Amino acid sequence: MAITVVGSVAFDSIETPAGKRERCLGGAATYFSLSASFFTDVRVIAVVGEDFGAAEEAVLTSKGVDTRGLERAAGKSFFWAGSYMDNLNEAKTKITDLNVFASFEPKIPAEYGDSEFLFLANIDPVLQRRVREAMPDVKLVAGDTMNYWINDHKPALLEVLKGLDILLINDTEARVLAGESNLVRASRAVRAMGPDSLVIKHGEYGATLFQGSSTNGNGAHGTFKVPALPLDEVVDPTGAGDSFAGGFFGYLASQPEITPAAYRSAMFYGSVMGSFAVERFGTERLQALTRAEIDARFEQFRELTHLA
Amino acid sequence: MAITVVGSVAFDSIETPAGKRERCLGGAATYFSLSASFFTDVRVIAVVGEDFGAAEEAVLTSKGVDTRGLERAAGKSFFWAGSYMDNLNEAKTKITDLNVFASFEPKIPAEYGDSEFLFLANIDPVLQRRVREAMPDVKLVAGDTMNYWINDHKPALLEVLKGLDILLINDTEARVLAGESNLVRASRAVRAMGPDSLVIKHGEYGATLFQGSSTNGNGAHGTFKVPALPLDEVVDPTGAGDSFAGGFFGYLASQPEITPAAYRSAMFYGSVMGSFAVERFGTERLQALTRAEIDARFEQFRELTHLA
Repeated sequence: MAITVVGSVAFDSIETPAGKRERCLGGAATYFSLSASFFTDVRVIAVVGEDFGAAEEAVLTSKGVDTRGLERAAGKSFFWAGSYMDNLNEAKTKITDLNVFASFEPKIPAEYGDSEFLFLANIDPVLQRRVREAMPDVKLVAGDTMNYWINDHKPALLEVLKGLDILLINDTEARVLAGESNLVRASRAVRAMGPDSLVIKHGEYGATLFQGSSTNGNGAHGTFKVPALPLDEVVDPTGAGDSFAGGFFGYLASQPEITPAAYRSAMFYGSVMGSFAVERFGTERLQALTRAEIDARFEQFRELTHLA
Repeated sequence: MAITVVGSVAFDSIETPAGKRERCLGGAATYFSLSASFFTDVRVIAVVGEDFGAAEEAVLTSKGVDTRGLERAAGKSFFWAGSYMDNLNEAKTKITDLNVFASFEPKIPAEYGDSEFLFLANIDPVLQRRVREAMPDVKLVAGDTMNYWINDHKPALLEVLKGLDILLINDTEARVLAGESNLVRASRAVRAMGPDSLVIKHGEYGATLFQGSSTNGNGAHGTFKVPALPLDEVVDPTGAGDSFAGGFFGYLASQPEITPAAYRSAMFYGSVMGSFAVERFGTERLQALTRAEIDARFEQFRELTHLA
């Protein structure tokens, strides 16, 4: 089943202890699309500027990503510059130039209309909501957000949450959104805002899926945990969360039926894709990746977590 | 197979967001012994003062813990007071009164001589080493330590590490001991100091067992991960790590053969016992625990981590 994703397609300048890259292809929708493309058809909605050329577009189209929803606007593409020199778990943003993104009005190509899955990557919740409302017939909607929207645009964000089946956010975002430091209680509060399923990402400690109902004092019922892969070196954490989302949602979209077992495997594929993304700068590793490598790493995750 | 454990038996005054307790029974050897007692015979070596009475001893003996190595000395027992009001993941120590522990010289009862398993809980590495050398014939030796010994008594600690098969420490301790922030690289450095197996505890994010050899850039080969149980409320984190160690090592000691599969189950039992310990203050939950509850929670951990 096809996924339509709306979000940023951008250029990033990144500095990490492993080195630096200037203006490499980035953006949440880019990472998500590349990651999900290994599992299902992906259609992207975003806006780019005149600096986005054929080479950049080919990164997406070579993976079969449908770019008919990639609008060209006069001006420059979204640009972000950040550093992980102090902390690999959290980027220090140096520059955010919205450029053409500042006046982005998502347009959904008619050809995307039969998408059964919708992913609302981290952008202004007003835009997320507009896309969600324009695609009322999708089967499953997932989304992401960040502290900026939680803190400063909460009413708009709460409207988006009502229309989500799955929300993927990190520990800090869950705590801030819920106003609650305990993650089990925070998960309950966030799920009461709309999403039936909540994926909380813990960075190097993996991720937790909260789903179903907790029947006693501990939150293990209907909950599923996947670790992150222990890595010798995290070259560049940029896009790890979006790559996780792409693997997770891409796998779900590839399944004939969305069962609890499918969610479990989806969590594994999410962590698998996140583990690849951080091995090189930007989208380099996702571009070079093969399905065979993905499947081999899935087995590594099984080995890492299963009793026998 | 019997485990001999050397470590502190103490009184703790604890304050957490859930409430406070004055002078409840505590100490690393106490938590370890109670936890391990559900799996195998446990023999404790420690010193207590005149304030340690029959009621306290009965907590241990009622679980079958052999207390013949519990020395009575003139004076008061080790006393610790701490608070978790700011951070449930890290105690703020208010008082540490070593009392009778200041002049502790571990004596090993002849009846403990046939113990095949030895656990060196977190105490002065000079004492850990003395006990280790007095029991040269044990089959498997595990130990714990803390930042104080890593920072200020490193030469003595390094001598202890040479004699350990398994070291259990937390993230910060591993990073400080190795002088390396990446946990995979830190694990390699620590294991080069002696212990073939290393368990790094991540608090609310579970624990990782590093073992065997890594054959490529990621550290998944020979590595095993167990999450912590998602809990609605952590009443008192005191003793969680020692309870983990007791479940982990107690289970290993109960096995006819120490296989890789046994280590995996041991990691699960470690996290199971840690999850119980924090549900109430001090040792209250471990005292009231049954083996049936332990086995039920083991299954919960399977459900939490396994694909099917």
